[in-house]
Amino acid sequence: MNPSPTFETAEFEARLARVRLAMAEQKLDLLILSDPCNFYYVSGYEAWSFYVQQYLIVTADTGRPIWLGRQMDARGARLTTWLQDGDIHTYPDTYVQSAERHPAQFLAAFLAERGLDKGRIGTELQSYYLTAKTQQVLEASLPNAALVDASLLVNWIRSKKSPAEVALMRQGAKIVESAMRTAVDHTRPGVRQCDVAAEIYRSLMRGTAEYGGQYAASPPFMPTGDRVDTPHLSWTDAPYERGGQANFELVAARHRYHTPLARTVFLGKPPQALVDLEKAALDGIEAALEAAKPGATAADVEDAWQKAAGRHGVHKAARCGYGIGIAYPPTIGELNVSLRPEDRTVLEEGMTFHLMPAVWQETASIVITEPFVITATGSDTLCKFERRLFVID
Amino acid sequence: MNPSPTFETAEFEARLARVRLAMAEQKLDLLILSDPCNFYYVSGYEAWSFYVQQYLIVTADTGRPIWLGRQMDARGARLTTWLQDGDIHTYPDTYVQSAERHPAQFLAAFLAERGLDKGRIGTELQSYYLTAKTQQVLEASLPNAALVDASLLVNWIRSKKSPAEVALMRQGAKIVESAMRTAVDHTRPGVRQCDVAAEIYRSLMRGTAEYGGQYAASPPFMPTGDRVDTPHLSWTDAPYERGGQANFELVAARHRYHTPLARTVFLGKPPQALVDLEKAALDGIEAALEAAKPGATAADVEDAWQKAAGRHGVHKAARCGYGIGIAYPPTIGELNVSLRPEDRTVLEEGMTFHLMPAVWQETASIVITEPFVITATGSDTLCKFERRLFVID
Repeated sequence: MNPSPTFETAEFEARLARVRLAMAEQKLDLLILSDPCNFYYVSGYEAWSFYVQQYLIVTADTGRPIWLGRQMDARGARLTTWLQDGDIHTYPDTYVQSAERHPAQFLAAFLAERGLDKGRIGTELQSYYLTAKTQQVLEASLPNAALVDASLLVNWIRSKKSPAEVALMRQGAKIVESAMRTAVDHTRPGVRQCDVAAEIYRSLMRGTAEYGGQYAASPPFMPTGDRVDTPHLSWTDAPYERGGQANFELVAARHRYHTPLARTVFLGKPPQALVDLEKAALDGIEAALEAAKPGATAADVEDAWQKAAGRHGVHKAARCGYGIGIAYPPTIGELNVSLRPEDRTVLEEGMTFHLMPAVWQETASIVITEPFVITATGSDTLCKFERRLFVID
Repeated sequence: MNPSPTFETAEFEARLARVRLAMAEQKLDLLILSDPCNFYYVSGYEAWSFYVQQYLIVTADTGRPIWLGRQMDARGARLTTWLQDGDIHTYPDTYVQSAERHPAQFLAAFLAERGLDKGRIGTELQSYYLTAKTQQVLEASLPNAALVDASLLVNWIRSKKSPAEVALMRQGAKIVESAMRTAVDHTRPGVRQCDVAAEIYRSLMRGTAEYGGQYAASPPFMPTGDRVDTPHLSWTDAPYERGGQANFELVAARHRYHTPLARTVFLGKPPQALVDLEKAALDGIEAALEAAKPGATAADVEDAWQKAAGRHGVHKAARCGYGIGIAYPPTIGELNVSLRPEDRTVLEEGMTFHLMPAVWQETASIVITEPFVITATGSDTLCKFERRLFVID
């Protein structure tokens, strides 16, 4: 029985086949995954256990993946994956955050017992959850293997979504729209920022009457006051002020698929610099969505944005978007495609992006973004939320 | 000016002095921090930017730490730390998630320019946010240095809290109590789990009339139904069921200091096995809190728990608690002290723990926990929330 609430076993098998194809291209005999997004993609495993070491092992030939994790998490593996009991293995709790023992030693012995400790073994060197220590232990404990960097191998496969995946992201779009509506409705002078954050979280989890939301890979970013021109900051206890600006970067999660949306709210008459930025942002977004279609490159989309915004004298040094889909903390980005000049990835139907041309200038900022999917002939925004600067008088 | 909303410059200077003392013990010439908790502890830096590479550099001699991060995050560093403009440096956005360039190359060049690229340089090999790739790049790019493992050097210093730190955790206790009350009040047959999650999040962020909450390092864990005996799972869209059990593991964050609390709720008449487990859990907690005092060891606390629970036939294989304080995803644990047999750490006044003797058995589970602080003579629970199984009829 496959207990995944969202995907058929056939979909997992197709994903695994694509992973093995990529492994063959890199001549890998074994792949050891650490990224929880890739765990979820390949096996359906869905639990907040990635703060301890866990490994999803894919052999080059056939068979289901092997899950190796902490003893107490084996039940979660049985409850959420398409794996069978014999595929699920554990290490004892004495290996957890121990100065004497490391789970990678257990992993190495586990592989040796099965004759899997040789050949070219790929690990995810750039994954947050592998750690440099694990890699060092594996290098010391697998003398017969050649360890090679398989970072992002699965991330790149994830870039193109199935209809079932896009459907989940459209559900997320409904949720994030409702949360953004909540943000716009509650942000008023005198209201504490933390109270608006509370209402936003409530909306994100309630979702709709048909389905609820999940914890997301990042919190709402909602800087205001002297923090408004700074990315990655959260709320404070201070109240919103008349004549102030608030940038809301929200994200909804539905079965680990993430749909982000950002808007700027101004409490009073917006300064001319902000009104001008709005025009630049809207023109840029329209041009970028127009350029986004099968056959175009990631760079083409960025170029279209840059040219349109440039006509308003606006330039953005950072990339203006990135691939989205499955996510766990700390990032909603898939770490595959970036919408920027050096990324020549050719866009295909089913790829999903966050067009995120936030402009942070020294004197003004605006954050208006759109998640979108590449369709057969062009692109379609996942959200249908008013695309403009929100002015609250 | 030090813009930290919570700590005086003198407290940061004292922390830095303790870090340098530990560096001297390990004969380190330089320490490169990656763990965002350690960034916050040493510099006050508080932003969700740790999904890209960033480094906090501490020299062995004198002077403030050096912050090196992404261009767009420099403003956040100026807004939240006690560092001065000259201490804050950035790498260009072309280094972000690039296949051609890695921020650690920039870091190595940055160190070389300043003559800091030699001697014994410590990195946090076990930090989620260093990555194995970074370590490999540093090894290749710093030929004149000996890289040594400085994992957890700062984490261990963090174990003992100042009065200002404990005060924040007591504020968090008020917040998590209010969220737990919300959980108990909203969990009813027929109510969707996601809707209860929504109300819990709302409480966690609203906090009290005096202060609000922040996003925490982990989401609420609230398994129920066939998932109830499984740790680390979150809610679903399904409604609570009459005759069912729900375990709530909640955590409040206040200026990055975390206060967790867990309780079990039963919707109906609880089975005898659960009532028996409750007795074991309560006796175990009482014995552990009694044993926790200055001069006792972490192992003593676990032993007291194990003996008391053992009298009810209950045994727990995993550790029964861990150090708490500053946290960012993915874990609320400080990764220093564990309440378990092999940990001989001597307890001192100001140390803070989550006594977390959750019992997950095949047929029954109960989760009743207490965050506590070591006082001059014993221990004090941070929360004053009814310690019992909650039965909703």
